[in-house]
Amino acid sequence: MAVIGTAGAEVLIPLAAVIGIAFAVFQWYAVAKVPVPSHDGEDGGGAAQKGRSGHDESAEDGVDYRQVEARCAEIQHAISIGATSFLFTEYRYLAVFMAGFAVVIFMFLGSAQRFSTRPEPCTYDPARMCRPALANAAFSMIAFLLGALTSVMSGYLGMRVATFANARTALEARRGVGRAFVVAFRSGAAMGFLLASSALFVLYVAINLFGVYYGDDWGGLYESITGYGLGGSSMALFGRVGGGIYTKAADVGADLVGKVERNIPEDDPRNPAVIADNVGDNVGDIAGMGSDLFGSYAESSCAALFVASISSFGTEHNFAAMMYPLLISAMGIVVCLATTVVATDLAEVKTVEEIGPALKRQILISTVLMTVGIAIVSFLVLPHSFTLFDFGRRKLVKNWYLFICVSAGLWAGLVIGYVTEYFTSNAYRPVQAVANSCRTGAATNVIFGLAVGYKSVIVPIFAIATAIYASFRLAAMYGIALAALGMLSTIATGLSIDAYGPISDNAGGIAEMSGMPHVVRERTDALDAAGNTTAAIGKGFAIGSAALVSLALFGAYVSRAGVAAVDVLSPRVFAGLLAGAMLPYWFSAMTMRSVGSAALAMVEEVRRQFDSIPGLMEGTAKPDYATCVKISTDASLKKMLAPGALVMLSPLVAGTLFGTETLAGLLAGALVSGVQVAISASNSGGAWDNAKKYIEAGASAEARALGPKGSDAHKAAVIGDTIGDPLKDTSGPSLNILIKLMAVEALVFAPFFAAHGGLIFKHL
Amino acid sequence: MAVIGTAGAEVLIPLAAVIGIAFAVFQWYAVAKVPVPSHDGEDGGGAAQKGRSGHDESAEDGVDYRQVEARCAEIQHAISIGATSFLFTEYRYLAVFMAGFAVVIFMFLGSAQRFSTRPEPCTYDPARMCRPALANAAFSMIAFLLGALTSVMSGYLGMRVATFANARTALEARRGVGRAFVVAFRSGAAMGFLLASSALFVLYVAINLFGVYYGDDWGGLYESITGYGLGGSSMALFGRVGGGIYTKAADVGADLVGKVERNIPEDDPRNPAVIADNVGDNVGDIAGMGSDLFGSYAESSCAALFVASISSFGTEHNFAAMMYPLLISAMGIVVCLATTVVATDLAEVKTVEEIGPALKRQILISTVLMTVGIAIVSFLVLPHSFTLFDFGRRKLVKNWYLFICVSAGLWAGLVIGYVTEYFTSNAYRPVQAVANSCRTGAATNVIFGLAVGYKSVIVPIFAIATAIYASFRLAAMYGIALAALGMLSTIATGLSIDAYGPISDNAGGIAEMSGMPHVVRERTDALDAAGNTTAAIGKGFAIGSAALVSLALFGAYVSRAGVAAVDVLSPRVFAGLLAGAMLPYWFSAMTMRSVGSAALAMVEEVRRQFDSIPGLMEGTAKPDYATCVKISTDASLKKMLAPGALVMLSPLVAGTLFGTETLAGLLAGALVSGVQVAISASNSGGAWDNAKKYIEAGASAEARALGPKGSDAHKAAVIGDTIGDPLKDTSGPSLNILIKLMAVEALVFAPFFAAHGGLIFKHL
Repeated sequence: MAVIGTAGAEVLIPLAAVIGIAFAVFQWYAVAKVPVPSHDGEDGGGAAQKGRSGHDESAEDGVDYRQVEARCAEIQHAISIGATSFLFTEYRYLAVFMAGFAVVIFMFLGSAQRFSTRPEPCTYDPARMCRPALANAAFSMIAFLLGALTSVMSGYLGMRVATFANARTALEARRGVGRAFVVAFRSGAAMGFLLASSALFVLYVAINLFGVYYGDDWGGLYESITGYGLGGSSMALFGRVGGGIYTKAADVGADLVGKVERNIPEDDPRNPAVIADNVGDNVGDIAGMGSDLFGSYAESSCAALFVASISSFGTEHNFAAMMYPLLISAMGIVVCLATTVVATDLAEVKTVEEIGPALKRQILISTVLMTVGIAIVSFLVLPHSFTLFDFGRRKLVKNWYLFICVSAGLWAGLVIGYVTEYFTSNAYRPVQAVANSCRTGAATNVIFGLAVGYKSVIVPIFAIATAIYASFRLAAMYGIALAALGMLSTIATGLSIDAYGPISDNAGGIAEMSGMPHVVRERTDALDAAGNTTAAIGKGFAIGSAALVSLALFGAYVSRAGVAAVDVLSPRVFAGLLAGAMLPYWFSAMTMRSVGSAALAMVEEVRRQFDSIPGLMEGTAKPDYATCVKISTDASLKKMLAPGALVMLSPLVAGTLFGTETLAGLLAGALVSGVQVAISASNSGGAWDNAKKYIEAGASAEARALGPKGSDAHKAAVIGDTIGDPLKDTSGPSLNILIKLMAVEALVFAPFFAAHGGLIFKHL
Repeated sequence: MAVIGTAGAEVLIPLAAVIGIAFAVFQWYAVAKVPVPSHDGEDGGGAAQKGRSGHDESAEDGVDYRQVEARCAEIQHAISIGATSFLFTEYRYLAVFMAGFAVVIFMFLGSAQRFSTRPEPCTYDPARMCRPALANAAFSMIAFLLGALTSVMSGYLGMRVATFANARTALEARRGVGRAFVVAFRSGAAMGFLLASSALFVLYVAINLFGVYYGDDWGGLYESITGYGLGGSSMALFGRVGGGIYTKAADVGADLVGKVERNIPEDDPRNPAVIADNVGDNVGDIAGMGSDLFGSYAESSCAALFVASISSFGTEHNFAAMMYPLLISAMGIVVCLATTVVATDLAEVKTVEEIGPALKRQILISTVLMTVGIAIVSFLVLPHSFTLFDFGRRKLVKNWYLFICVSAGLWAGLVIGYVTEYFTSNAYRPVQAVANSCRTGAATNVIFGLAVGYKSVIVPIFAIATAIYASFRLAAMYGIALAALGMLSTIATGLSIDAYGPISDNAGGIAEMSGMPHVVRERTDALDAAGNTTAAIGKGFAIGSAALVSLALFGAYVSRAGVAAVDVLSPRVFAGLLAGAMLPYWFSAMTMRSVGSAALAMVEEVRRQFDSIPGLMEGTAKPDYATCVKISTDASLKKMLAPGALVMLSPLVAGTLFGTETLAGLLAGALVSGVQVAISASNSGGAWDNAKKYIEAGASAEARALGPKGSDAHKAAVIGDTIGDPLKDTSGPSLNILIKLMAVEALVFAPFFAAHGGLIFKHL
């Protein structure tokens, strides 16, 4: 039997979580050592001034550092206030939604057995008695609220870390690119470890607390726990969509007037939308992404746990083996900790060229180490062989099968990451060809960019399909859930790298707005360019893991709803499949249009300010930042409702009216179609963004022939970049959540659909 | 029993085909009455001149009509020569492919039973003996060649009609918009009836000839006949892709330099790419579309016949019922004939405003009449009830079930047509909003256009899903095949309307180039604007019918390959599903990139000519049209190979290496994903095109505020139009063929895959 037993699991999981949180606090503390003067007054920066300006490597004549630091603090404060106030407003809306949906969960699931409080035969072992459906309804509701709260907390804390780190990164950039890199990266790590560890910790505690009531009824326990994934994902949906609309309305609006019409640089303080733009990075790319990846993590854990609970682990009550998914995540925290130390302490970044490779190395190191970690966990925790529930059949599985499943996901993630880099980094041919097509204008740029996005889908899909085939074959749906978990096992490192991007972006904005010397801005730009590619890689991971997670959830749903086979040749399934494949388009139509119309409003406001505020272009008058912030806030809150409702209601409507089979088709269709749309949208956007940066940087003869800033080719590149903005930061990344969320919702409501679904066909 | 027996069917089908062909010839004759002077010399136009110029309503001072007519003839001749020479070059390539693929078919199918010449047990009734697999291999090959030749002929004849009619439409436009409309519409009808009738006739003759050998073995007979669909569709693929690249490379290249950089009007004779552009309309939109719709028609007939052959019609040898699909098509020809007479003779178009409604009315009239026609055929031909083969089970079906199946497809087509019109006509809000977003530049225009395309997918998908559900439920896969046939039953009218568009487009080009007065150009522009929307409607029909056809073929493939169930929860199927959903993206990446790079080459050539030919801009020197024609020709021939190979090889590779289940998944994935990509690409493109036209026409206060030509908003609209060109005329329409062709190929090769497929898994 396995080496690590129940007691070992009970100790190791919370221990890893606590170590992760401690490490996050340590990183935060290291970042906090960079002093920023108090924000309330331009004369308050004395202390920092004393301690710092003596070491300033980039001192140039004529720059008053007291004033620069004070302005830094002021801008940081404005961004932080803006982001906090937006998130709190958003959370107020979400609280209403959460309360309402919690009631829906309780009513639907309670009604599955007419609110009976009596024990009932277990779903998978009718000879035994299990807890009543009413209890599952109540605990699912609690798990949902817990997941929602943890998700909101993940987003909020991420935003706090990022708005704490942005000015510090800018200030540290004066002392060299390596120093700035470490600050930005440590901040990302603080967010990454905080999120990964607290997600694990809350889940672990919830399982133990729920266990007090459920006792031996593990089926009921882990069925309720899936509410945790639903809560996490539904908050992530609104976070991603709302944040995505916010940030891109501001970004597109700022660029269209500032860069295209007025020819002023990015992040110029004269641009009225510049604060909204920087706030947007924090609420969209940081808070939204944090919630998103938390959701993926929570869902893949829940899917794995649910499937395991109906395997021999569950029926034989092998707690350590049951906790295998959580132990994998615990190992992931330890592995990522070691990986992070390499970047922050062992292999120092000294020049601009080293940034990209250093970040890529992080992914490689964590993948290699994690493979060893998975092997250790698999052989210490799992019995040598055991049986799984495979849609009615029993399937014999060996422990090394699971090692392969988790590793397949992990390495598929690496492949996706590297392919994404190839298609979105301006070091390679695809982005250079896109840049080159700007010679003939914006139209060819867009045509080439779309083509690159489409092409970038091929290899990731084969990687995912291979991982799915292998893990499916070896361990059925449990294998898929584990592959998803494997891809997410290095989430702490993934998030570090991911969060690093928007932090650097913000740092660049602060450097520009506070009037730091040009050399500092160049350093932050270099940090940001690398961040652009890592952001695309992060999105690749998010999409790949979402595909695996939702397939696992789909499998769990099919088991729970008692669907015998999801046969494409059944008319109900096929109609669902076709409609499901359409949903990503419907959803994208809404989000694209929302960004478009919010950006139109923003453009008009920015134009109005430039036209009506005397002295604004000359820098003698201040713009009215607050109105732009308000436009983004109002647009995002108003426009996140419809796409959110589409995603939340589709499974409910399909399941209730058309039944479990059509819903199964719908989920499969949305999954296979959504993945493609999401990857191509993300990568087209990334390619356009970096094609523009390629022309701006002018690092090769080809690039110089296209430039400089303001040339016709550059203008064409800016148009492509602007089109890519909503694709890569609003529609694309939200689609992961669409496919995951619909699947987890179907799973949570499966008992209801199984009992009462398909109203239309019943009455026909 | 049914009223019409074998003899009735044997008479009625060829009779309808002959009537259709006669009607086409009559239309052609009516068009030919408009005289065009002989093209060989500017002084040769005397005869026409005498007969016509006296009636000229648009005579303006200073226009020399002899010279105008002579120039018309000259341009028409140049376009005709260009199109003919391109098609012949293309056909030379295709002949090599056809020969090679015919051998592949023979070898694969022959090898299914090791080239045995002995009779073998029938697939669906092992007690009886059927013809050897080798015979099926030979006859499938013959049917393939027959389909390929008919497809090529359809495209070629369409092109001949169109290049015959374009100058005549332009000349007739001098006498009023109604006269020009009738000429263009009659030409479209000539093509439509020729194609629909000859497709029916060739299929009918082939069935009768093959029957001489097969006798009672109807299973083998109709299995071989499916090769007809494969031949038709594979030619259509190359025709669509090659023609699409040709026309859009020329169009994009001409527009980017002519309209954007040099500010000269569309179709200005000074533009070196203008002849290539007009040739492109004929080889892409006319010949390509003709082959495409012929392919759809052939495939849906073959799918229906194959499924029927294994139903009680086949086993009981009820020939009249067996011919039900062909009788529906025969009725369609009669119905469309009546519909056409309404447009050409009964309800005359007098003003510009009447064109759009007249075309829309055609679709409505043909749909209503056809519903009656379907009822007549169903009740006269079919026995009151009969049994169908439904994946192993026998299913009892009543004759009115089939009436509903065919009608469901027909009316779903009408819904798709009307929705497409709503999203792509500038009479409605969506296109106006896209035009309005040009206020803030090209980026917002593209964002809004993409959103409109995505949104336009929703209702068509629900219409298709409903038709599928209903017909699937009532008559299993036979129902789906009949729904597809229903949507295509009014193909003659559909093609008339469709072909009318490019003919008017060409007429406008000829009017501009030959120096006709402005008022004539305005009339042809109005014809063209209506043609833009009908082209989008035609594409909607093509895509909708392709979805139904490929589902029917898919079902036939699954039956023939003996796949028990296409369960999404099987790893082989799911991996196939995911990879299949990716194929439309891979394919689009290739075609978009091909158009992009060919357009780049075209732009550079056009710029070079403007820069290096003295007097070109002033109109004193002639451009070098031939080089531009050559660029388009070379690009399209070279670049159609890779996407063609992708489509032709994917099913072969998947079936041979991974087996019948993975191939089934692949087909389903490509189908559900491809439909969405195709509809959204077509409609985004259509919306951008008409948004541009909306600004140019300036028919409302909003439109006038955005214009005139050359304003910033108009320039932004031109960029959107250019991006939409490859989406709507290359990638989008080729995707129909992708999904149909893969399915019919799988069906034709099913015996081989069933016998030898899945090599990888056999050796693992």
